Amino acid sequence: MNIAFIVYDQMTMLDFIGAFDPITRLKELSYLPDLSWKIVAETDIIKDANGLIVKADMISPDLSQFDIIFIPGAKEICRDVSFINWVKTSANCPLKVSVCTGSLILGLAGFLESKKATTHPNSFNELAQYAEVVEDKRIVDENDVITARGVSSSLDLGLYLCDKLAGHDAALRIASIMDYEHYK
Amino acid sequence: MNIAFIVYDQMTMLDFIGAFDPITRLKELSYLPDLSWKIVAETDIIKDANGLIVKADMISPDLSQFDIIFIPGAKEICRDVSFINWVKTSANCPLKVSVCTGSLILGLAGFLESKKATTHPNSFNELAQYAEVVEDKRIVDENDVITARGVSSSLDLGLYLCDKLAGHDAALRIASIMDYEHYK
Repeated sequence: MNIAFIVYDQMTMLDFIGAFDPITRLKELSYLPDLSWKIVAETDIIKDANGLIVKADMISPDLSQFDIIFIPGAKEICRDVSFINWVKTSANCPLKVSVCTGSLILGLAGFLESKKATTHPNSFNELAQYAEVVEDKRIVDENDVITARGVSSSLDLGLYLCDKLAGHDAALRIASIMDYEHYK
Repeated sequence: MNIAFIVYDQMTMLDFIGAFDPITRLKELSYLPDLSWKIVAETDIIKDANGLIVKADMISPDLSQFDIIFIPGAKEICRDVSFINWVKTSANCPLKVSVCTGSLILGLAGFLESKKATTHPNSFNELAQYAEVVEDKRIVDENDVITARGVSSSLDLGLYLCDKLAGHDAALRIASIMDYEHYK
């Protein structure tokens, strides 16, 4: 299983790292020894909303080679045509995942048509342009598209994916190692 | 107020980002308009435990110029003499903060003598070598040294610092924007 973690300028880093932490533990703890991931971007380096610089492993790869794509949000998401067209190369990926306003990017790419989805509460109205139903839930799972609410929901989403990919016991153990008392 | 966020190879990125998110919002939301920060490391780039590459803003600066230093943990913390000696340059900083096993680094630097402190529960025994009292609490505040427990406690610590630096209303508003329902 190969995951693409998409990063871009002005993104909210916690949207990404909150899920990156539990998901990557699936490999470290040998629940999914073959799990692999790449940090992917349109440019060699990106700068988050607070100036933190992260280096990409791959620049604009065809995303159809990945099993899962993961998209974080931002106060102002990237709406560049080239970026959205690149995200669209994931159309055939079995699972697309977003946190916070990352779901607006999934929407701009056309992946939320006739889907339920969620986002940061401040963006519920905008999400309604792209999704059939906007749900005020922490996580909305439409099987091939999973969206999570605001920033800190990234931790919950990461653990939700651990459960989905490796079972509830794996997710519970990872939550314990993360010292996260809010996952049941 | 100027904060040094220390990063190093093999670190746990969520230890850092979970607090970086709320703390940096103090500036964005104009609670502390003069707040500034630098990502500091011994090398130009560092690679976290999962291969994520982050670029430093400053390489091995004298840490005494900062008001706050922030140290994340790792499964295997950096114990290099050069690293610990560099951390020691923060001796006169008014506030030293750690998440998870970052407190062992504070301990190695000699900053926990006659202090209460906490760390990841798996490292309570090792912390007892450095701190006078190891407390099984989410956050332990000794005024000039604040330590937090395991990985995800970084979010709680970040919000705790928001409260300490800008008041409870600021912290509550930031928790709301982060969609973090566990901060009261």
